[in-house]
Amino acid sequence: MTLEVDPTGSVTSALGFVAGAVYAGIKTYGDGKLDVAILASDRPAAVAATFTKTRLHSASVDVNRAKLGTRGRGQAVVVNAGCANSSTGQRGLDDARTVTEWTARKLGVAADDVFICSTGVIGHFLPMEKFEAGVNAVEPTPLGGLDFARAIMTTDTRPKHGAVRFGPYTLGGAAKGSGMIHPNMATMLAFLGTDAPVQPAYLQRCLSDAVEKSFNLVSVDGDTSPSDTALLFANGAAGGEEIREGTPYAIEFAAAVEALCVHLAKEMARDGEGATRLLEATVTGAATTADARELVRLLTTSYLLKSAVHGADPNWGRVVAVIGRSSAAYDEDAVTVSICGIRVFEHSRPTEFPLETLAEAMKGTDIAIEVSLGTGPGHATGWGCDLTAEYVHINADYHT
Amino acid sequence: MTLEVDPTGSVTSALGFVAGAVYAGIKTYGDGKLDVAILASDRPAAVAATFTKTRLHSASVDVNRAKLGTRGRGQAVVVNAGCANSSTGQRGLDDARTVTEWTARKLGVAADDVFICSTGVIGHFLPMEKFEAGVNAVEPTPLGGLDFARAIMTTDTRPKHGAVRFGPYTLGGAAKGSGMIHPNMATMLAFLGTDAPVQPAYLQRCLSDAVEKSFNLVSVDGDTSPSDTALLFANGAAGGEEIREGTPYAIEFAAAVEALCVHLAKEMARDGEGATRLLEATVTGAATTADARELVRLLTTSYLLKSAVHGADPNWGRVVAVIGRSSAAYDEDAVTVSICGIRVFEHSRPTEFPLETLAEAMKGTDIAIEVSLGTGPGHATGWGCDLTAEYVHINADYHT
Repeated sequence: MTLEVDPTGSVTSALGFVAGAVYAGIKTYGDGKLDVAILASDRPAAVAATFTKTRLHSASVDVNRAKLGTRGRGQAVVVNAGCANSSTGQRGLDDARTVTEWTARKLGVAADDVFICSTGVIGHFLPMEKFEAGVNAVEPTPLGGLDFARAIMTTDTRPKHGAVRFGPYTLGGAAKGSGMIHPNMATMLAFLGTDAPVQPAYLQRCLSDAVEKSFNLVSVDGDTSPSDTALLFANGAAGGEEIREGTPYAIEFAAAVEALCVHLAKEMARDGEGATRLLEATVTGAATTADARELVRLLTTSYLLKSAVHGADPNWGRVVAVIGRSSAAYDEDAVTVSICGIRVFEHSRPTEFPLETLAEAMKGTDIAIEVSLGTGPGHATGWGCDLTAEYVHINADYHT
Repeated sequence: MTLEVDPTGSVTSALGFVAGAVYAGIKTYGDGKLDVAILASDRPAAVAATFTKTRLHSASVDVNRAKLGTRGRGQAVVVNAGCANSSTGQRGLDDARTVTEWTARKLGVAADDVFICSTGVIGHFLPMEKFEAGVNAVEPTPLGGLDFARAIMTTDTRPKHGAVRFGPYTLGGAAKGSGMIHPNMATMLAFLGTDAPVQPAYLQRCLSDAVEKSFNLVSVDGDTSPSDTALLFANGAAGGEEIREGTPYAIEFAAAVEALCVHLAKEMARDGEGATRLLEATVTGAATTADARELVRLLTTSYLLKSAVHGADPNWGRVVAVIGRSSAAYDEDAVTVSICGIRVFEHSRPTEFPLETLAEAMKGTDIAIEVSLGTGPGHATGWGCDLTAEYVHINADYHT
């Protein structure tokens, strides 16, 4: 089941969610607009979360993990851009808890039900005075979803948001991410809210599955960040029976989460630092899903393939070389490679493909690379972007 | 034991080796000078080799593997630049064998004793007519070592060569490599020759060990190529007793091979496509050598760290983030990071390092990054280069 995403939707599209943002002076680079944001449900909600797998994680991530525990409940999240609160030790943990307490007081909810996400420079402490003033100034409303999406940006050039309808319910979301890691200024964050009532265990399963198929298959530069977090709230504001495995709307809900996560993930890849083209890599015929995902990640992170995509060069050799160095099983004679729908390699040899036609197709903004390994049913699709001189400028010219 | 490398030495510095090169018209890009080269010993020699680990390997690599088998003997190698003879099927294998037969006839040696290395565009057949004329035109001499080093270049901007003395013996060598892979135009090749008499098994062990510590720890872009090959000839022309485990000069010989391979590896990193700076990453205190090597490879291939080195930015956060996403064991509080000899991170926090001084030091051509993990005796050093806009231009603007 594939559901359509409304790209104009937002994290407050579902019933019972409010959001708002202000500029508190924490983010001193970029457009300088909006850096403290709050998303809240009008009632306690089921909550699912996934966190960064890297061992260097921010104090805010540690605090969220502790708050969520196995409760699967929560009501709000406060987000700041400009300071990741990472490599900040015990003081960082204390600061993060304090901010959630201010937010809880402001909203009139339990402090345990408020999460915190921080993105930006690492190794710096949160500017607590500015932060407190910011939290107190935010006025969350049902129309604040787009401000929320703007406030969480760091090197992003545009906000990323959308919403999906399934049955009588709505799922809305916002995300940020431009370099997959950019430990001084960025990270990947995603926030989703639905007005469907969902069992916490099923909520977590749907989010985990969707994250594997979306954010975990996006790469701008192959790095991961200390703050990566996806949070999904289900507040049940639209009523009805609790959704869990096997109930009505269970399949629709899972499809909605996946569709929205994929939409937000593609928006991140498209807005990759310096990017001019989206690279969509699809692997089929793999022995296992794990093989397919590994190869997708290698394809979307290859310097040479990303450079070729930037140059609109139908360089099948770079695709074949990545297959060769992967650990994915393949049947040499059965391997096929297509670029923008045109078969360029099969039977261990390049085809007589129309070079001019293909080079012209590669001048578009969406470049599809499809590989079939001819060994099994494993498949995966992932997203990256081209490697540009602008990427180097962004990341070389920034100074610590 | 560390031996000094004479950077003016060459693959014909040892007794009994001759080399030569001509332009046969196979390489149609780059400076257009010299593309067919021959290196020969005046007598049969012990031979050791290491080949690419990627599963996409060129026909020339397959032919060499078959020729070498377990014999450990050989006498000459013919090299062409401009065409990798990869993804060329049975015809590629036949062509490679034919070229070694021409070369054997020209030199008056056994065809089984002649190897072939090919570097350049993949998916194209060797231009056999030009190649035959080239082989017949080469006139190998003891002074041909530098021409040999030039002829094997593809996107390299300068030839890579050197020699080491150990006791009464000499070891000379040449290498090429600019993108670690660049499957359309490049690869990494290294050729070494010594006049010491060396037992084939010990020769192979010394080469394998040295390759692990040198070429296998160089990365320009994290990719590997279908043609990567290192060949080491030991012809015994300087006389004396056969060197093997435990004999006089055994340790010196191993040190000489390692020193020359490290020299050539660093020359490759320094000449990485678009590079302006050498990045030398050293990891100590690792639980195992494998952990240390993994982390070295991740450091030298990180887009963000390579960009920071280009921008002379002492971005400790990018180093710490790479440690976090590696699988190497570490003791969080004991981890230290130094850049250009200045400690920038310890006890889980950035130090109060002198930003201006360090930023100035990072404007040099050799940037040392040292990480200690505080868990064990494992250590490794590897080399890479900065990521530049020029790298993107080179790899985006080339057209298939």
